[in-house]
Amino acid sequence: MKLLEEKIKKEGKALPNDILKVDSFLNHQIDVAFLNEIGKEFQRLFANEGVNKVLTVEASGIAMAVTTAQAFGNIPVVFAKKVAAANMSKDVYCAALHSYTRQRDYNITVSKEYLHEDDVVLIIDDFLANGEALNALISLCKQAGAKVVGCGIVIEKTYQPGLERIREMGYRVESLARIKHMDEGVIEFVEE
Amino acid sequence: MKLLEEKIKKEGKALPNDILKVDSFLNHQIDVAFLNEIGKEFQRLFANEGVNKVLTVEASGIAMAVTTAQAFGNIPVVFAKKVAAANMSKDVYCAALHSYTRQRDYNITVSKEYLHEDDVVLIIDDFLANGEALNALISLCKQAGAKVVGCGIVIEKTYQPGLERIREMGYRVESLARIKHMDEGVIEFVEE
Repeated sequence: MKLLEEKIKKEGKALPNDILKVDSFLNHQIDVAFLNEIGKEFQRLFANEGVNKVLTVEASGIAMAVTTAQAFGNIPVVFAKKVAAANMSKDVYCAALHSYTRQRDYNITVSKEYLHEDDVVLIIDDFLANGEALNALISLCKQAGAKVVGCGIVIEKTYQPGLERIREMGYRVESLARIKHMDEGVIEFVEE
Repeated sequence: MKLLEEKIKKEGKALPNDILKVDSFLNHQIDVAFLNEIGKEFQRLFANEGVNKVLTVEASGIAMAVTTAQAFGNIPVVFAKKVAAANMSKDVYCAALHSYTRQRDYNITVSKEYLHEDDVVLIIDDFLANGEALNALISLCKQAGAKVVGCGIVIEKTYQPGLERIREMGYRVESLARIKHMDEGVIEFVEE
């Protein structure tokens, strides 16, 4: 998605430790007009698959999951929760993952009420690096018996093992921007 | 908002310890079509105030902040973060709050890059009970010198001190559903 590559080049910041900051439009401030376009693009890529639910994980996946769901005609979004809150039912599907950004392990959960075996799910997330979040989200769908049509990713780091890992599991992954190399102040995209 | 009261009566669950579960449409599964209507209603209530930014706090405020921002013609959303992540700039505004749901204190932060003195801010959140989150979000705006036109709340518990607290600070609060009494299995609204 050319528009996204230009946005990342203009506003993204490649920091040390392989951190790409896109806080200006994606995961702190949200450029809503731009996310509307991202939602339309995911809908175009996964049209005619019978998607009836968008699944993501809090917090930074929520905004793009909502605009994607709108593009599919306002289907429901479910966001997996990172912390078992006091008002969370015990009746949940649960999957473990490691956050490389925050250097810690945690669980994500989805209430069994909101993920079913008749669901046809599109998984949406902002980043794909090691594939930890996607793997956990797929696990939640498997536990529910729901069908996963694929994963829509805004920014993929192609030099990390996430894509291969998820594709080897048999799932389609569509990334709107694919970074092949990143260094402090340098961002290079895969040429399609 | 009649539609919201009906939704809460139909799908909401009043649990012990003053917990209202609205996980089926608001803060776990998201009824996107319904949130589009909530966004339009907030826009109607705060039209002609010159709002140029919607501020909320992760995670459950994000979806309704996005649909509200869309109703205002796709203005930006900023969501305050609850944990200082490794890829977060040190250059942030910070405010402390207590979560009664999770029984712990934490900080919320907004990068100084995304909140300015020329911003005219509408604060959006899902619940108003003790007013802790609103108070902290207002504090972030004050630190930035931004103007707050008011707070749009989806569900207010009128029997808790939040509304009075925020109004005494001089801020307008608009709640789309106002609960006057709640008990296990019982939800009563303020009659307007």
